[in-house]
Amino acid sequence: MTTVNDSTASGVGADLTNEEIFAAHEGGKLAVGVTAPLGSARDLSIAYTPGVAQVSRAIASDPELADRYTWTQRLVAVVSDGTAVLGLGDIGPRASLPVMEGKSALFKTFAGLDSIPLVLDTTDVDEIVETLVRLRPSFGAVNLEDISAPRCFELERRVSEALDCPVMHDDQHGTAVVVLAALRNAAKVVGRELGSLRVVISGAGAAGVACAKILHTAGVGEITMLDSRGVIHSGREDLTPIKQELAGFTNASGITGGPAEALRGADVVVGVSVGQLPEELVATMADGAIVFALSNPDPEIHPDVAKRYAAVVATGRSDFPNQINNVLAFPGIFKGALDVGARKITDNMKVAAAEAIAAVAADDLSADYIVPSPLDPRVAPEVSAAVAKAARADGVAKA
Amino acid sequence: MTTVNDSTASGVGADLTNEEIFAAHEGGKLAVGVTAPLGSARDLSIAYTPGVAQVSRAIASDPELADRYTWTQRLVAVVSDGTAVLGLGDIGPRASLPVMEGKSALFKTFAGLDSIPLVLDTTDVDEIVETLVRLRPSFGAVNLEDISAPRCFELERRVSEALDCPVMHDDQHGTAVVVLAALRNAAKVVGRELGSLRVVISGAGAAGVACAKILHTAGVGEITMLDSRGVIHSGREDLTPIKQELAGFTNASGITGGPAEALRGADVVVGVSVGQLPEELVATMADGAIVFALSNPDPEIHPDVAKRYAAVVATGRSDFPNQINNVLAFPGIFKGALDVGARKITDNMKVAAAEAIAAVAADDLSADYIVPSPLDPRVAPEVSAAVAKAARADGVAKA
Repeated sequence: MTTVNDSTASGVGADLTNEEIFAAHEGGKLAVGVTAPLGSARDLSIAYTPGVAQVSRAIASDPELADRYTWTQRLVAVVSDGTAVLGLGDIGPRASLPVMEGKSALFKTFAGLDSIPLVLDTTDVDEIVETLVRLRPSFGAVNLEDISAPRCFELERRVSEALDCPVMHDDQHGTAVVVLAALRNAAKVVGRELGSLRVVISGAGAAGVACAKILHTAGVGEITMLDSRGVIHSGREDLTPIKQELAGFTNASGITGGPAEALRGADVVVGVSVGQLPEELVATMADGAIVFALSNPDPEIHPDVAKRYAAVVATGRSDFPNQINNVLAFPGIFKGALDVGARKITDNMKVAAAEAIAAVAADDLSADYIVPSPLDPRVAPEVSAAVAKAARADGVAKA
Repeated sequence: MTTVNDSTASGVGADLTNEEIFAAHEGGKLAVGVTAPLGSARDLSIAYTPGVAQVSRAIASDPELADRYTWTQRLVAVVSDGTAVLGLGDIGPRASLPVMEGKSALFKTFAGLDSIPLVLDTTDVDEIVETLVRLRPSFGAVNLEDISAPRCFELERRVSEALDCPVMHDDQHGTAVVVLAALRNAAKVVGRELGSLRVVISGAGAAGVACAKILHTAGVGEITMLDSRGVIHSGREDLTPIKQELAGFTNASGITGGPAEALRGADVVVGVSVGQLPEELVATMADGAIVFALSNPDPEIHPDVAKRYAAVVATGRSDFPNQINNVLAFPGIFKGALDVGARKITDNMKVAAAEAIAAVAADDLSADYIVPSPLDPRVAPEVSAAVAKAARADGVAKA
């Protein structure tokens, strides 16, 4: 009997065997069901010919009726090219499909949304955009998933511009929304305001970039970004376009150097890379520090070690307190957006989602409880309602 | 209260009201379900991270495992560009979606196959082929639907060549398979062999072309094709490439002229157009004639009128005997092909499907019972088994 990892490294409270994992994935994890009865000739006449012709004719006259008489307004396409799958990297579309099926299953389980995985045998941004434009009448929203940086930034921007529907790259914004929610509550636990915090983000990939943006939008005082070459600042000659953008609104203090310079005296560190956060550097952070070590399955610093120096510690794992899991965000975000026919997902909708997640945990707040459990059934409805309200306020809602 | 048609013209035995039709289509007709449990943290760890990484890694090493550990091997993409929808014509992808959802519902109901409608906002054959090539890792088979002739011929050929999976344009072959099944049994009822019959096919669109091909493959003696300009023969200057192909294997007697010349003395007429079959011409057919008037909702000749001259009459309608309904064919054809991992759908697989459909009705054969009811639960399993066997015999099966 082989196991995925030992019970600690696997990120779950019990050993998983390959046998049970493969058995659970046999034949895939999704099925299509029929919501209109088809048991009699009369049923067939209503749901198929000749009855369906009336519905098609009505939509041909008024395309808006497709929202009402097809499944698109509750259907999310989970789209990937398989270039950045979990910790596995560029394993291709076919091998990414079990992950995308899992994502679709989470949409259904947590938000009641229908979802189909579409894995694409191309990594060309132009071709992916073009393909989704052609498929547009087939779905109501697009969840981009496991697409490598920096392509993911351009791709999300272009797909959002090309389609008049909610589009979100979850590896960026799902994570960022939950980080913001967790940081709001962690700040309360240590008695600080977001505006007074100096936050270091270690990792400038998909999640790191989105974290920087949402924390900036939410009013975090100062943000310092680290990539593999050290602190991102406008004096560096090696910055990609997205990192140049980051340099424009981060690092107001003009820190140069590496992790040691960035972490010294920092209030918060958010680890979203596969790198390490050495204990001796975490020891140099400010009193009442907050450490989010989100790399999976191996956090940048073991939470027990981080706890020696930090007031609040969170990870991406279910076997330690404060799991930062983007399943807290994406089901409710898409549900809220689709419920009101949103044309896009705005920054305010993401911030509203974070506030709703934080609020669910607010009554029982402690250093070991800054976010709700991923299985907490209160979360998705609260997120959905908050996102719908923000969409209306932003003027991007139909309904 | 408005009705679709009066009860006769609607093709069903009872009035359908717009109210009940639209109510049945509210919110669409499909839903995605989850086949792996996701109720606990442990379930999540198995079906999603970290467990799913094992499955993705396995597929990355051996792509064939995608057939086993994803839903693709039971998933049919129902693909349309909305250019030839029912009797409505080119109403576009959005308005075609209720029909495609209905088709997916039929796949599930009759063959237990999962199916997703993909409607495309392009009518360019190159672009449709390219889109399906990019999407290839997402599904196991392609049912092309409601795509206008003559584009549908080139499109089906090119998609079949480009993808290593079952591909079928159902408007062509689903209809043709059921016509062959019905003709086999009708010939038995009148005591004739297929090889001795002279068959006229009225209409050279998607269904007419496929009927000509399958009847030729099955050994029908002589086939005469009619289009809107009369009998198709190699002397005509106005033939499209597909009609030139038809001219090569039909009309051995060298008939020229129109319906009158074609029908005089013919044993069988298959109407697959919106044109009429005038009573006075049907009256000139041979003794023991067979009339299939398949246009919907208005048959080319009313079956009661045809019955005055013909021994066997079939229509596309459920309110007369002998309904030629392609739901008898496509669910079982795709099920059989996917069950054995067929790389394509061959002519022999289609002929085998027709024989299986005919065999289900064989024990109770009469002039009013030449095909099973579309709701007969015996049909899809019999078709599926026959198609799987033929795929193996043709060497196109994996399993």
